[in-house]
Amino acid sequence: MTTNTPMQLGMVGLGRMGANLVRRLMRDGHTCVVYDLDPDTVREVEREGAVAATSLKDLVGRLDRPRNVWLMLPAGVVQRTVDELADLLDTDDVVIDGGNSYYRDDIARSRRLAPQGVHYVDCGTSGGVWGLERGYCLMVGGDEAAVRRLDPLLRTIAPGRGSAEPTPGRTTTTGTAPEGYLHCGPSGAGHFVKMVHNGVEYGMMAAIAEGLSIIRHADAGLRDRTVDAETAPLRDPEAYAYEIDVAEVAEVWRRGSVVGSWLVDLVADALARSPGLDGFAGRVSDSGEGRWTVLAAVDESVPAPVITAALYERYGSRGLGEFTGKVLSAMRGEFGGHAEKAG
Amino acid sequence: MTTNTPMQLGMVGLGRMGANLVRRLMRDGHTCVVYDLDPDTVREVEREGAVAATSLKDLVGRLDRPRNVWLMLPAGVVQRTVDELADLLDTDDVVIDGGNSYYRDDIARSRRLAPQGVHYVDCGTSGGVWGLERGYCLMVGGDEAAVRRLDPLLRTIAPGRGSAEPTPGRTTTTGTAPEGYLHCGPSGAGHFVKMVHNGVEYGMMAAIAEGLSIIRHADAGLRDRTVDAETAPLRDPEAYAYEIDVAEVAEVWRRGSVVGSWLVDLVADALARSPGLDGFAGRVSDSGEGRWTVLAAVDESVPAPVITAALYERYGSRGLGEFTGKVLSAMRGEFGGHAEKAG
Amino acid sequence: MTTNTPMQLGMVGLGRMGANLVRRLMRDGHTCVVYDLDPDTVREVEREGAVAATSLKDLVGRLDRPRNVWLMLPAGVVQRTVDELADLLDTDDVVIDGGNSYYRDDIARSRRLAPQGVHYVDCGTSGGVWGLERGYCLMVGGDEAAVRRLDPLLRTIAPGRGSAEPTPGRTTTTGTAPEGYLHCGPSGAGHFVKMVHNGVEYGMMAAIAEGLSIIRHADAGLRDRTVDAETAPLRDPEAYAYEIDVAEVAEVWRRGSVVGSWLVDLVADALARSPGLDGFAGRVSDSGEGRWTVLAAVDESVPAPVITAALYERYGSRGLGEFTGKVLSAMRGEFGGHAEKAG
Amino acid sequence: MTTNTPMQLGMVGLGRMGANLVRRLMRDGHTCVVYDLDPDTVREVEREGAVAATSLKDLVGRLDRPRNVWLMLPAGVVQRTVDELADLLDTDDVVIDGGNSYYRDDIARSRRLAPQGVHYVDCGTSGGVWGLERGYCLMVGGDEAAVRRLDPLLRTIAPGRGSAEPTPGRTTTTGTAPEGYLHCGPSGAGHFVKMVHNGVEYGMMAAIAEGLSIIRHADAGLRDRTVDAETAPLRDPEAYAYEIDVAEVAEVWRRGSVVGSWLVDLVADALARSPGLDGFAGRVSDSGEGRWTVLAAVDESVPAPVITAALYERYGSRGLGEFTGKVLSAMRGEFGGHAEKAG
Repeated sequence: MTTNTPMQLGMVGLGRMGANLVRRLMRDGHTCVVYDLDPDTVREVEREGAVAATSLKDLVGRLDRPRNVWLMLPAGVVQRTVDELADLLDTDDVVIDGGNSYYRDDIARSRRLAPQGVHYVDCGTSGGVWGLERGYCLMVGGDEAAVRRLDPLLRTIAPGRGSAEPTPGRTTTTGTAPEGYLHCGPSGAGHFVKMVHNGVEYGMMAAIAEGLSIIRHADAGLRDRTVDAETAPLRDPEAYAYEIDVAEVAEVWRRGSVVGSWLVDLVADALARSPGLDGFAGRVSDSGEGRWTVLAAVDESVPAPVITAALYERYGSRGLGEFTGKVLSAMRGEFGGHAEKAG
Repeated sequence: MTTNTPMQLGMVGLGRMGANLVRRLMRDGHTCVVYDLDPDTVREVEREGAVAATSLKDLVGRLDRPRNVWLMLPAGVVQRTVDELADLLDTDDVVIDGGNSYYRDDIARSRRLAPQGVHYVDCGTSGGVWGLERGYCLMVGGDEAAVRRLDPLLRTIAPGRGSAEPTPGRTTTTGTAPEGYLHCGPSGAGHFVKMVHNGVEYGMMAAIAEGLSIIRHADAGLRDRTVDAETAPLRDPEAYAYEIDVAEVAEVWRRGSVVGSWLVDLVADALARSPGLDGFAGRVSDSGEGRWTVLAAVDESVPAPVITAALYERYGSRGLGEFTGKVLSAMRGEFGGHAEKAG
Repeated sequence: MTTNTPMQLGMVGLGRMGANLVRRLMRDGHTCVVYDLDPDTVREVEREGAVAATSLKDLVGRLDRPRNVWLMLPAGVVQRTVDELADLLDTDDVVIDGGNSYYRDDIARSRRLAPQGVHYVDCGTSGGVWGLERGYCLMVGGDEAAVRRLDPLLRTIAPGRGSAEPTPGRTTTTGTAPEGYLHCGPSGAGHFVKMVHNGVEYGMMAAIAEGLSIIRHADAGLRDRTVDAETAPLRDPEAYAYEIDVAEVAEVWRRGSVVGSWLVDLVADALARSPGLDGFAGRVSDSGEGRWTVLAAVDESVPAPVITAALYERYGSRGLGEFTGKVLSAMRGEFGGHAEKAG
Repeated sequence: MTTNTPMQLGMVGLGRMGANLVRRLMRDGHTCVVYDLDPDTVREVEREGAVAATSLKDLVGRLDRPRNVWLMLPAGVVQRTVDELADLLDTDDVVIDGGNSYYRDDIARSRRLAPQGVHYVDCGTSGGVWGLERGYCLMVGGDEAAVRRLDPLLRTIAPGRGSAEPTPGRTTTTGTAPEGYLHCGPSGAGHFVKMVHNGVEYGMMAAIAEGLSIIRHADAGLRDRTVDAETAPLRDPEAYAYEIDVAEVAEVWRRGSVVGSWLVDLVADALARSPGLDGFAGRVSDSGEGRWTVLAAVDESVPAPVITAALYERYGSRGLGEFTGKVLSAMRGEFGGHAEKAG
């Protein structure tokens, strides 16, 4: 294991992710110049050892050339920040977008900065609130030279080789993937892979959630089910007479099972805290990557029924299928004289 | 076109379907003995020309042998009625179950009655509240001789050859399918085909409803969509700036289009009556056949993603995915610190 | 019923659809100037009464101003034809795109032609090879004045009021939808509605096809199913002991049933011609609109599980999920030592 | 941590799973009497320290009362073995079915053995070929006393507390779930939970496989796509110009990412061994539990679109949707004159 080379990085955006990235970098000996719209946040990170900047321009001025500027911003403000940086940066500087931008925007931004010799690197960052300790999985796109230059920073941010057992079948000793970061291809490739990663995440989450729901409702035969022309009776109530503790099921699945995963770890934790998941209404947000993954699947002609079902399940959970349901009820009323049952 | 032979039928159950079947039969010259738990209903149909019975036993007593007894009952009371009839009927009598029984029950009931020489015929009946005028599509199962004996009755109930253009590629002149009734196979085959018919119906209804919903929401770009970390912004609002009248769309699809169908006729009617489908909450019931169709697909190893999605869409519309949603929101809270958005 | 005003139309593209549109228009007294790359086709339609043109320019020259030029072309050549027409047409001329363009292209083309005062009308046309006799369902987008001017042409092409029973609940006497054509909204609205129409078509077709497949495989219990660790045995073979004639089922569903539809008529015809559907391998094409419908659903946040499942089913039928399957088999091999079974 | 009590177990069935269970048990100090139809296998395990039996009767005779007999057999032979054991066992003996029986059979078998005072315990066992080293996740059903008696055996077979980090939110110190085994409820509850576990596994596997497929086909814009009336052109080929190494993607996802899981570990291994997954055709088997999970979801009225899509994807991969595809192609031929494209 080689010792890592200390580098300097400018971090724009000190939300949860940005601030933790800075902390992780500083712990490993890197220097960080930081900026955020909120001066309190800047001061807090300054107290932990970062160099504070008062503006984007100030941040750029405090960095040695060639500069490395990492954006960790809400998707909605990345474009304007890139535009502003275009006027502040010089040849050979690198802008890294570490947020959840749409990969097609990366392609456009990269082209926008290229004439000035500024490199644009897109970096999908997974790890959530746990990344400070666990490290972040990094999926990187952009030109080879720029990405190679960032290697010491990426290596620090990533979880590192020791964070998982070696893959038995892996014979190649090259490549950074076993460190937890990967240069996936040209501009946009990093966010493309991160986008699909999130699509996979949607599908895995849904599989787990549906399964736990089927287990929770294994008591269906114990509960009264009104039998009328509008409701199918349960034919074998005695086969659904289980009251199973789903929190314990999630816990037991964490060890030795084929479904063992970080997501099962997390759901076990959530159920340990609140077996009934009180405080959740079941309205599930989606934040872009799942949608874009489906759009890519459709464009590429790759069937993705599972990932897509997971996306629609989220839409449905937020009541977005209401008009569809009304049309269905109206049709039933028309052909069968069925009145809609009260909720 | 041959003239139909008048027959005698005992009808048990005078709900909407049962009463209309009797009316359609009497109009065509058949004689009906009728019974229902509700004496008012019996009296009403008696006034229209039927022979009233005061009990199942009375009904059986008023029929000439070999008897034909048609059950048009809620699924939940068929079994007990068949049991009761087993003691009342004799060799060569026929019991017809015209309701929506599960085809596996037909197999059992047929075996139950066979030792006494009583024939059991299962008859899936489609047509809803419109069947009195349009005729009913009949899908029949049971042994050949029994079904053949019922031919004049089935012919009357079915819509008849003239109700649709001849199928151009059909060269065979045999078979009753062009009349609108079909002996599908041994016991249970009729309800099996009717079950799948309803599964197809679920899928077709869902396709229409989803499509109209996509058209209705073609104005998504005109409405404010809160943009935050939990909500993906609409990238091309100008591409969703249509306010389209879905009632008119349903109406225009009725003529000349590939989706032209009775279901589109019905939805056009519902939307003409109430463009916003007021009075419907969008909670869609399902009444057994859709579920059984999915069970059959799974057992047979036939992929049926569309029909199954339609079934689950109905489940979801009634809030039955709530726990799944809670688990998903809880996981999102765990890994990303995402709070669930208020509804 | 008012008498229709005779008009003049230039038709570019004399494929099946274009030629039949011309025939239908001429039958009703309209005059058509026609052009196609293939001079034989032009001559054929000329013999039926059309005015032949030798080039796009010639066609434009033979039309009275303000001109109406209808494009009935493969999607791939529409743009270049519109570009060419932009130089040939004048203020108040109308270009109608009657093909299957993506509605977003309509918006762009409409903007492209607007500065010259040329109107662009998008017209989704459903009816297939049967439209000459049945008439075509027309879904139209564009500015009000241009569409209104085309009314006599649209009225002729559409099936007309008599082609379906009146919608009982429809009380308004205005609107053209009962004639079979509809101005849906501004540029692109026509193709948007046609796009979703085709998405609905995908879903309805899939529901019918899955249902017939479930019926066809109702004999699963009669066939040997190899039972090994890799294959789940059928638990209730006696419940799947039906050999049902799917051609007859399709025929019987045409009359009186809730699934009655033009698509069921067509499948009955196909099965009458060839019960085993010989000559089809089951590789189902898709031609754009289904995909675009899914993209719209995802963008609009409307759950469309049924329409999307239908699209993916087509992808899958063409082997496009192969890599997914390989990954699944490889995973099974890894955790369970399962070898993939031979086909 | 308490020291485990040595116990004696009879193992029937020495396939991969059975033999490894015996090895794991003997390593931890338990005594095993073993039987298999194949005498070579028995001898092999005998050489490793087990007591060999020559028949089921011999095995029963060599066990101290009350006996514990574990069945690790293909699903198809469990019933007959239970029947045989019913005649050989006595009051207070326990039969454990560690295979993948359908939970409804457990209920019946439990009832079958109860009159003789023999306890039946169903034990879902996950861990595959890796369980010998990692331990097996055990999901157990049956009556309390019988399961409690087996505790030392279950504790040894399970992975143990140290095999995963403690769940942070878990405050209770009771329960065996953190050891990797769980008494889920009465007869059948163990296999019910294992069944759903496998359903979840199907969904997670499919999400991963679909995602990797979308990444692999990110080069769709680089490849020629024939553009004709039957094939939708790719609108933005430049957005699909990535050639991404999916093996490296799987490897990088193993560290720090939200999708980190044993399944991702396994797919990384498979892709490391063969990046093109040569030797797999993509025909994916399913072995019962996935189907049963879907049946349970349908019965319970729990929407499970993701798990079900995963099941159907497997069906489809084996060509089981062929007739559906033929019907679709036939319909397209009917309404549009579309010929099916060659494969």
